[in-house]
Amino acid sequence: MKRLIVDMDDVIADATGQFINFYEREFGVRVTRESLNHQEEGLGFPNHHDIIQQFPFRETFFQTMQPNEGSQEIVEKLNKKYELYIVSAALEFPQSLSEKLKWLGEHFPFLHWKQIVFCGSKAVVHGDYMIDDLPYNLETFNGEKFIFSAPHNLHINTFQRLNNWKEAGERFL
Amino acid sequence: MKRLIVDMDDVIADATGQFINFYEREFGVRVTRESLNHQEEGLGFPNHHDIIQQFPFRETFFQTMQPNEGSQEIVEKLNKKYELYIVSAALEFPQSLSEKLKWLGEHFPFLHWKQIVFCGSKAVVHGDYMIDDLPYNLETFNGEKFIFSAPHNLHINTFQRLNNWKEAGERFL
Repeated sequence: MKRLIVDMDDVIADATGQFINFYEREFGVRVTRESLNHQEEGLGFPNHHDIIQQFPFRETFFQTMQPNEGSQEIVEKLNKKYELYIVSAALEFPQSLSEKLKWLGEHFPFLHWKQIVFCGSKAVVHGDYMIDDLPYNLETFNGEKFIFSAPHNLHINTFQRLNNWKEAGERFL
Repeated sequence: MKRLIVDMDDVIADATGQFINFYEREFGVRVTRESLNHQEEGLGFPNHHDIIQQFPFRETFFQTMQPNEGSQEIVEKLNKKYELYIVSAALEFPQSLSEKLKWLGEHFPFLHWKQIVFCGSKAVVHGDYMIDDLPYNLETFNGEKFIFSAPHNLHINTFQRLNNWKEAGERFL
């Protein structure tokens, strides 16, 4: 069985949508997803960039995210065909550990705790395939690399691209 | 720089001592460390084995452990010579995640969060050397394997052995 490494934020979880929600709640402006395209994480918002960087340190940020469209159905199918691990660089945000664990239990109940990895650097994990939205996570990976589309990575063309979970299903199932 | 993977419980943290403490607190009997030798984890205690298995699910179990003798000084030195990761199979015990993170911050403050990995299975990490007390963690590792002595592994002779942190320092520094 091939080993498939799947990221959380902006891959199975809609982190971008959560930034938009938190921005709206704090500043009363609902930014469109498209307006964030081709800009570094957080910098697509009109202002308050220093406060936006603090959103992931706030309670409920990770626990109340929505799953990305199609992620639950496709990951459940991938889970039968691959040795699948969810690998999240969660250690940067201490309170995210328990929130992410609860979130996975709620939205991906078919995953076993043995399949979850919370790390700082992803350089330490290895496998056959990695799906991630961040180039620096992919760069250190030993296997085949797939960038999962998010507003902040649309300008990157050095990896194979998966635009959504439908495409991921077509590639891996 | 060679990558060195170091376990937490019964390697840098005195998990055995914590089991002894919790057993004494619960049942009024202080078991000696030697009486646990050559027996599976938990089974060296005179009785109440079902309750002992629950100790790691209790609050403060991980956060109030003592560091193993010499671990802090030697790991701090190793941290300058190796690409060092602390890798703990913490996902089995949900409440351990935040406790372990606080514990590392308290006792190993020189480690960066990028060097910490909380996983379920260690099969997903790779490196040059692994120091662990549990054979099943070592078995799936791609690099050179070292078993760190703990009462439950003294009968195992299929790995290079480190009896304590003094020996680990002599081998790796």
